[in-house]
Formats: sequence, structure tokens, C-alpha cells
Amino acid sequence: MDYKHIGIEEVKSSIRDVIDFPKEGIVFKDITTAIKDPAIFEYCVNALYDYYKDKGITKVVGVESRGFILGSVLAYRLNAGFVPVRKPGKLPAKTIQQSYDLEYGKDVIEIHSDALNQDDVVLIHDDLLATGGTVCAAVSLVEKFDVKRTCVNFMVELDFLKGRDRIDEKYDVFSLLRY
Amino acid sequence: MDYKHIGIEEVKSSIRDVIDFPKEGIVFKDITTAIKDPAIFEYCVNALYDYYKDKGITKVVGVESRGFILGSVLAYRLNAGFVPVRKPGKLPAKTIQQSYDLEYGKDVIEIHSDALNQDDVVLIHDDLLATGGTVCAAVSLVEKFDVKRTCVNFMVELDFLKGRDRIDEKYDVFSLLRY
Repeated sequence: MDYKHIGIEEVKSSIRDVIDFPKEGIVFKDITTAIKDPAIFEYCVNALYDYYKDKGITKVVGVESRGFILGSVLAYRLNAGFVPVRKPGKLPAKTIQQSYDLEYGKDVIEIHSDALNQDDVVLIHDDLLATGGTVCAAVSLVEKFDVKRTCVNFMVELDFLKGRDRIDEKYDVFSLLRY
Repeated sequence: MDYKHIGIEEVKSSIRDVIDFPKEGIVFKDITTAIKDPAIFEYCVNALYDYYKDKGITKVVGVESRGFILGSVLAYRLNAGFVPVRKPGKLPAKTIQQSYDLEYGKDVIEIHSDALNQDDVVLIHDDLLATGGTVCAAVSLVEKFDVKRTCVNFMVELDFLKGRDRIDEKYDVFSLLRY
């Protein structure tokens, strides 16, 4: 394959804007059009790998469901283990839960209670940083394991929603694409 | 890392049996204990890569949500694109749907209607082959694109549920672990 012409701008153009999804007034950044292109997909993985390769990551925590996609590839590339964070009732063994506020109501995510340990350097990955509710809950879950260090990564970050302000101070936050 | 001692038996022992999940009488094969171990995770990816590397796969179709994990890594290793199959309402753009029978009632999965084309050689990946309902629906979705060839892959296959009988005749079916 020819990678010469692929850069961040090509990745941005490969992402599809879907108007009024999941509800009216929202322009959804659809990464499926990016990851179905092998060259774009590989570019994204390699760019994230380059950023994290020297950080000693031992576990990548992927947030259900889109966070499983690049999260697991990153785990593989970094010689790390992969750990899923999921909605309640999906993980089969003993879990730790964390609730978080939505615009209307609450939601809950959970992680297996034997998923991490104090020697782990964790990279939390999700596809999108918007208002940051989900990732703050994921960070809280990881903190309960008293791990060595936590990094936070997104494929796409929507700057104007200021989700970064909720996590930036304590953690190394990196997004491949920012809008 | 030391890979000398890792083989199929080590992968099998790394999978956790969870009794009575998701309901009474079922012994759930929990792959999270396998994929959180970097050496086991890498062994699984490499074993699947070896099996598929010469088959000209252009797209890996992963079935939500556990099928995203190894499916996306396989796509990366095979220089293929990754395409998610999801429950209704999760994919943002135009989709094609397929319903399938459950023990009680029906379920539906869908794929973006521009996800595949006639030149694609497709590898459908899911973590588990049980009775085969979901994967038959995924195969039906892929067939609608009139692709060149379709392979079907699982991390774990439960032989005694005979899901393979529903797909084996027409497709190349391979499971890493069989019980």
C-alpha cells in the first residue's frame, strides 16, 4: 500500500459527518468510514503507537463499544493487555461500578475487579471526547486499582465541549484529531 | 516477553469459566482473562493471522461488542479495513438490517450500507460460536454486498451446540479454541 499521501488531514477527511445523530442538532463524527480504509486505519494506529511506545503502558482499557476498536489494536502494538470497560450486566465476573451524570439522568459503567493491579501503567482509550462524562467515570474506575500511572487517549476530540478541562490536570491526555 | 511456553493449552487455561452467566445453567467462557495477558493476547492474534494471512482478506467484519476486540487487531495485522456490525440504532449512517431468532423472541443486527463492495474478501469475526444465530445473521448481511468470498472466524467454539452445522458448508470456518 502507498502511505505517502496519508496524514492527519486525510484522516480528518475520511471521517463522515452525520447530521442530527444521535439526536437533532448534533453532528456526529462517524469513524467507521476511516477505519474501513486499511491505509487510514494503519496510519491512526501507528500515530497513536508512536505517541505511547515509550510510556511503559501495560494495559489498555477500552470503553464500550467503539473504544474496543482502536483500543485493542493499541494494546497489541504496545505489547500490553486489553481490558474492557462495559455497561452493567455485560461483564460476566465480579465488577466494580461507577455511575456518571448524563444530560438527563445517570448511566453506569463497570470493570472486572481483577482487571488491573498496582504495577500497571494504564492507557484509557475511547473513540471520542465530548463533554467527558464517560471518560471521567472510566478514570475513576482505574483509580480504584491504585495503578502506577494513567494516560487518556481519544481518536477524536471536540474542543468546544471542553471535556479536556475535566481530566487534563492530573493525566496525560492525547487526541489524534481535534475539532 | 517469553513466548516459549505459550500454546493452545495455555490459552485455554487463561479463559475463565463463569458459572450461571448470563443465566442459570450456562457456563460462560470469559475471554477477558486471556486478553488482559499481553503474551496470551499476542499468541491469539498471531495464530489467527497465520491462518488468514494468505487469504487476501480486505475487510474484517467484527460483531458487536466482543467481536470488535480481536476483529480489529486482525484487520490491522492483515492490512484490511475494519467494519462493525452492531445492534440497531448504534450505527449513525444508512444501514442494512437482518433479524434472527433467539430462544425467546427476535434480535436484529445491522451494517452500514456502504461498508463493503463486490471486490471485498471478508472475514467475519466474533468471539464465540454457540448456536450460531448471530453469525448466520452477520453472514446474511455480508452476502447482500455480493462480495468475492467470505470466511468466518471465532476465538472460541462450543462444539456441542453445533452452530458450525449452520454455516460450515458454504464458508471457510475456523475457531482458535474448541470445547
